Amino acid sequence: MNRKPPWVQGPDGQSLEDSTADTLGIPDRKRNAPVGVFDSGVGGLTVAREIMRQIPEERLIYFGDTARLPYGSKSKDTIVRYSRQVVRFLRTKDVKAIVIACNTASAYALETIQAETDIPVIGVINAGARTAVSATRNGRIGVIGTEGTIGSGIYTEVIRKLGPQTQVIGKACPLFVPLVEEGLLHDSVTDEIASRYLSVLKGKYIDTLVLGCTHYPLLRSTLGRLMGDAVTLVNPAYETALELRDLLKAHDLNREPDACMEGEKYQFYVSDLAEKFTSFAAAILPNQVRETRKIDIENY
Amino acid sequence: MNRKPPWVQGPDGQSLEDSTADTLGIPDRKRNAPVGVFDSGVGGLTVAREIMRQIPEERLIYFGDTARLPYGSKSKDTIVRYSRQVVRFLRTKDVKAIVIACNTASAYALETIQAETDIPVIGVINAGARTAVSATRNGRIGVIGTEGTIGSGIYTEVIRKLGPQTQVIGKACPLFVPLVEEGLLHDSVTDEIASRYLSVLKGKYIDTLVLGCTHYPLLRSTLGRLMGDAVTLVNPAYETALELRDLLKAHDLNREPDACMEGEKYQFYVSDLAEKFTSFAAAILPNQVRETRKIDIENY
Repeated sequence: MNRKPPWVQGPDGQSLEDSTADTLGIPDRKRNAPVGVFDSGVGGLTVAREIMRQIPEERLIYFGDTARLPYGSKSKDTIVRYSRQVVRFLRTKDVKAIVIACNTASAYALETIQAETDIPVIGVINAGARTAVSATRNGRIGVIGTEGTIGSGIYTEVIRKLGPQTQVIGKACPLFVPLVEEGLLHDSVTDEIASRYLSVLKGKYIDTLVLGCTHYPLLRSTLGRLMGDAVTLVNPAYETALELRDLLKAHDLNREPDACMEGEKYQFYVSDLAEKFTSFAAAILPNQVRETRKIDIENY
Repeated sequence: MNRKPPWVQGPDGQSLEDSTADTLGIPDRKRNAPVGVFDSGVGGLTVAREIMRQIPEERLIYFGDTARLPYGSKSKDTIVRYSRQVVRFLRTKDVKAIVIACNTASAYALETIQAETDIPVIGVINAGARTAVSATRNGRIGVIGTEGTIGSGIYTEVIRKLGPQTQVIGKACPLFVPLVEEGLLHDSVTDEIASRYLSVLKGKYIDTLVLGCTHYPLLRSTLGRLMGDAVTLVNPAYETALELRDLLKAHDLNREPDACMEGEKYQFYVSDLAEKFTSFAAAILPNQVRETRKIDIENY
């Protein structure tokens, strides 16, 4: 990776800009930069986990907005404002790309952030929609998510663009996040609430169900049992990690697995309760989480 | 109320400062000023409602921090910072006194705000503690609240100061707020969750239970049925309204019922989702709620 093209060398063979640059002119510094990933709290760790699994060479900076969570019950204006502040924070860390690992923020803020930012930005909704359209056989897709995500109608819009004949049935499930946060992953109360929420989807004979909130994969076994084997559950996290991998390659921003590693590979930031976050992250992620730093996000 | 003491009149009998002032030198402008009431969201409306009932002559400015709710699961640092911003906002409205109508903010921020503010400030915890100590016969008091309120140990501290022989058993009930927000006030799921939370309190033979979160009075019938007739439920809102009435009188800040009313008697502000707040408030309050204004609380 240290071959320098002639146009970054001076007449005496010294580098004109970065000390290392690859054949396409993208400096290694840039390719070695981390990817920024953010969510309202811990939910986006299910997306970070997939990125760590699928593209283990990439470095990550994760931010969880724990001082202002949840995002799912707040307005578009507020979520766009919060997302802009988070993007400003992530850019101080020189990220090379950003993943909005929160369905509500993807629904409300992705377009705005993409228009305002000169690095690649992706959300989780396109990936989830694409997987669902490939998976369905009868053309009936269910989507569950927060009030914000379902109310925005974004999944229906994106899925119908990819498969105009598809029928999409959305259902907001506002109690799932508090139930997950309370640790009731396998519990009769969660079963009861889930069967109420899912009954409308079962009545529509869907064969594919998008888990349109990053907390929901943690309820996967309950949701799978209630929907039955004939329904495919789609977790957008996996497909998002693959989309990120392809995006980085397309922009020639993918990190070389053997590139020199300076500093920590994975860094975690939150706006509140750093220690609580560290224990949650340690339980979800395959790698050790040593430390979470707290920042004041309102200053960005 | 228009008799002016000599020290606010110039030699020619003209007022030196305010055009109207009472015998104690407190200008009517000040006595006519509204009381500021704040909470993380709609919960504090149960306190506002009691103030409207007990001291109907007072004007109120209510603020609900709906862009950053809930407060109950966040850290002391964060809640103190949020409370300071809210107080700065309320002071732009020239409030004469402030009621922190949120147990978590009362637990974490009351002392700091009182020390930094030159107008009277009260929370809801002293009132609740005092009522509980008067009500108990066997000296065993239960307190339910958010993780923040219970974790702070504030109710135990205040109750033990008032009644050193009292035994206090606290229990955090984090799912109650989402269940109330979801409207499941009378529901088998709420029954099941409540009986799990309350079982530890029943096992301790309490005879008094403090509803230490402003959302909980909305679950009163469920809680009363599960605890049984022998247990007195204490809602700090009623006692807080009386404490405010006495405090205003002690500071000679109580508004005269027949004083001239300029502008709206009750004003509502939130940091997000003003319309949703208006409908909720209209359902809880005896008076008509015409409008809720949205402000950007991070700017204060």
